[in-house]
Amino acid sequence: MAYLNDHYLKLKAGYLFPEIARRVKVFCEQKPAAASRVIRCGIGDVTEPLPAAVIAALHKAVDEMAQRESFRGYGPEQGYDFLRAAIAENDYRARGLEVADDEIFVSDGSKCDCGNILDILGHQNKIAVTDPVYPVYVDTNVMAGHTGPADDGGAYAGLVYLPGTVANGFVPDVPREDVDLIYLCSPNNPTGAVMNRAQLSAWVSYARSRKAIILFDAAYEAYITDAALPHSIYEIAGARECAIEFRSFSKSGGFTGLRCAFTVVPKSLTSSGKMASLHPLWARRSSTKFNGVSYPVQRAAESLYTPAGRAQVRGLIEHYLDNAKVLADGARAAGLTIFGGVNAPCLWAQTPRGLTSWEAFDKLLNEANVVITPGSGFGAKGEGYFRISAFNSRANAEEAARRLQKLKW
Amino acid sequence: MAYLNDHYLKLKAGYLFPEIARRVKVFCEQKPAAASRVIRCGIGDVTEPLPAAVIAALHKAVDEMAQRESFRGYGPEQGYDFLRAAIAENDYRARGLEVADDEIFVSDGSKCDCGNILDILGHQNKIAVTDPVYPVYVDTNVMAGHTGPADDGGAYAGLVYLPGTVANGFVPDVPREDVDLIYLCSPNNPTGAVMNRAQLSAWVSYARSRKAIILFDAAYEAYITDAALPHSIYEIAGARECAIEFRSFSKSGGFTGLRCAFTVVPKSLTSSGKMASLHPLWARRSSTKFNGVSYPVQRAAESLYTPAGRAQVRGLIEHYLDNAKVLADGARAAGLTIFGGVNAPCLWAQTPRGLTSWEAFDKLLNEANVVITPGSGFGAKGEGYFRISAFNSRANAEEAARRLQKLKW
Repeated sequence: MAYLNDHYLKLKAGYLFPEIARRVKVFCEQKPAAASRVIRCGIGDVTEPLPAAVIAALHKAVDEMAQRESFRGYGPEQGYDFLRAAIAENDYRARGLEVADDEIFVSDGSKCDCGNILDILGHQNKIAVTDPVYPVYVDTNVMAGHTGPADDGGAYAGLVYLPGTVANGFVPDVPREDVDLIYLCSPNNPTGAVMNRAQLSAWVSYARSRKAIILFDAAYEAYITDAALPHSIYEIAGARECAIEFRSFSKSGGFTGLRCAFTVVPKSLTSSGKMASLHPLWARRSSTKFNGVSYPVQRAAESLYTPAGRAQVRGLIEHYLDNAKVLADGARAAGLTIFGGVNAPCLWAQTPRGLTSWEAFDKLLNEANVVITPGSGFGAKGEGYFRISAFNSRANAEEAARRLQKLKW
Repeated sequence: MAYLNDHYLKLKAGYLFPEIARRVKVFCEQKPAAASRVIRCGIGDVTEPLPAAVIAALHKAVDEMAQRESFRGYGPEQGYDFLRAAIAENDYRARGLEVADDEIFVSDGSKCDCGNILDILGHQNKIAVTDPVYPVYVDTNVMAGHTGPADDGGAYAGLVYLPGTVANGFVPDVPREDVDLIYLCSPNNPTGAVMNRAQLSAWVSYARSRKAIILFDAAYEAYITDAALPHSIYEIAGARECAIEFRSFSKSGGFTGLRCAFTVVPKSLTSSGKMASLHPLWARRSSTKFNGVSYPVQRAAESLYTPAGRAQVRGLIEHYLDNAKVLADGARAAGLTIFGGVNAPCLWAQTPRGLTSWEAFDKLLNEANVVITPGSGFGAKGEGYFRISAFNSRANAEEAARRLQKLKW
């Protein structure tokens, strides 16, 4: 008799984005005249076309695949050397950070990597997440059997939740208790907060003193505009001994539909168990359970590091950050308290008058025809907030800002 | 203190293909004059360029990504409707098999799916594999902690090995004991054997009577030429209640470098545990730990179902199967006993004079400069055999056949 993984039973049925989609659908069916006015600032997906350098690289790689002499079949599971080298050189060594080419593992997405990394880690680890939190960190631990059931507020037994609040600028302090694995996301999804050097250093010190591992999600790194803020956890001394870093081309090059990301696993990252180093485990995992990223897509990612590619990425980032400013101005003019949006492509707004996240969602949908993401979908401490994504056309961002400004709360 | 997944310690260090690569490298360094003569019939990777229909579909999709109006960001994690519908209609319903569009899960590779499927299954299942076996089935179970250590022959404690031998035509009978999960691969990698209707029916009956689940890997389905042989396990009545089927575009459309495959999870597939149906679990897993396949690649896969695409795939299959015939003729002329190669793109050769697999490997490399895969890499019952891949240019296949024919064993 085959058994299923019963831990899936603990997962809360309604995932955030399907519920948003359901409410938008109902609204559009009930008010068809307003349907075309709906502006989506909910799910954080890019809207602008791929950069010209990427398009050219894709066409070129496709043409290579059409000729026997230049055709490529199976590539290295960990990524082609040309891309691993481009990443390590440009994102790390050119910034004075020690990362070897073969410490870069190219993948089809940071979401996948953040989930799959648990494959090489033990079930006995005590796990800390921030609250609010990117739901994938939590759900993949639930699926792996690392938690008990959820309480009414959606918090799972066995996880250590670290509250992000106005008081701490949405950057939780290190806990007093000992934990073994810590998920940190900076720039943060959903709050837009970025950890500064002192905060990150405190976490690295904590991890090293406990022999803990930090899973550092820097998928929004390209949006950092403040020169004082760290782009990589490896800017902190000692991080190569305690941290794995996740990066993505999704929000920099607009690769959400192409699929390419990477994970950095330093060879100096060790645990105290029987197996010292994590690097060979992750390499073995990818060789066994992955077959590498599509060759044309890896060439596309490589093109982002050319002078033309860099300039085009910079243009995309500025476009979305300018949207964030436009939206923040509109929301503030209506009296809302807004966080984030300066070093991240999303705003974190406080609901006025003690409204719940979903009440704010419904009001914005019905009265402004603007779709946002309710903060409670990111955890108990997200209640009373909502996320406004800056991924949009300028025209949409400006129109959404005008409607936000006019809305009577 | 962070713990790693200690089950990785049980994995045998030397994976098959790295060891082959190492020996070929040593040979080429020691005999540089012969290096250019080496013909690789080892790793089963396609050699011919992508079909014209695929190239055209890729270029078109890339151009769509260059325009704001047609740009696509995040797609559905389970695959675009256009591709799920094309697969379900052409590979199943057109052949009289009941498979709904949303029972198709598009992925970036069958190897990934064969490994990831364990995520939704319980750790208490008793697992059966054939011997010889595709190593990924075994290694992913070792990593998940479903086995004890390996013995000297490479067999892991706790797994049920079902021997494939000359006597049973390399298609193992159902076991007398009860098992919960069974990995079947047909056409088989590495033996090239294909399960006939009676054999597959026996397995479906076995699984239904035990409420077991069959994981049916049909990655080489396109190579079946014998009209009497089943292409899908769903050709057997009752299979929708007990089987998951894995398929790939790697060896049909030549997608090993593009990455696209799919898995069929029927909604009628249930377990006896607390959770009845597997379908929502797999959907939830893919939503949480996967982000879909690259949009241009999904359009490329769709193009394989057009009249032009079908004809071009047929041409590729015939090319590789003709190679198999050429190679089999050469090997038989030298007195070797050869299996497979008629409904599969690989030959399974018996080593003469009781040579071990690796002795045959070294002899073929040194004396014929032909690289094959030693059978022992596929399990204890693979000892005394080697696999010859038919993926090559015609010129290489013919030259390898000439050398095989001349070789004195």
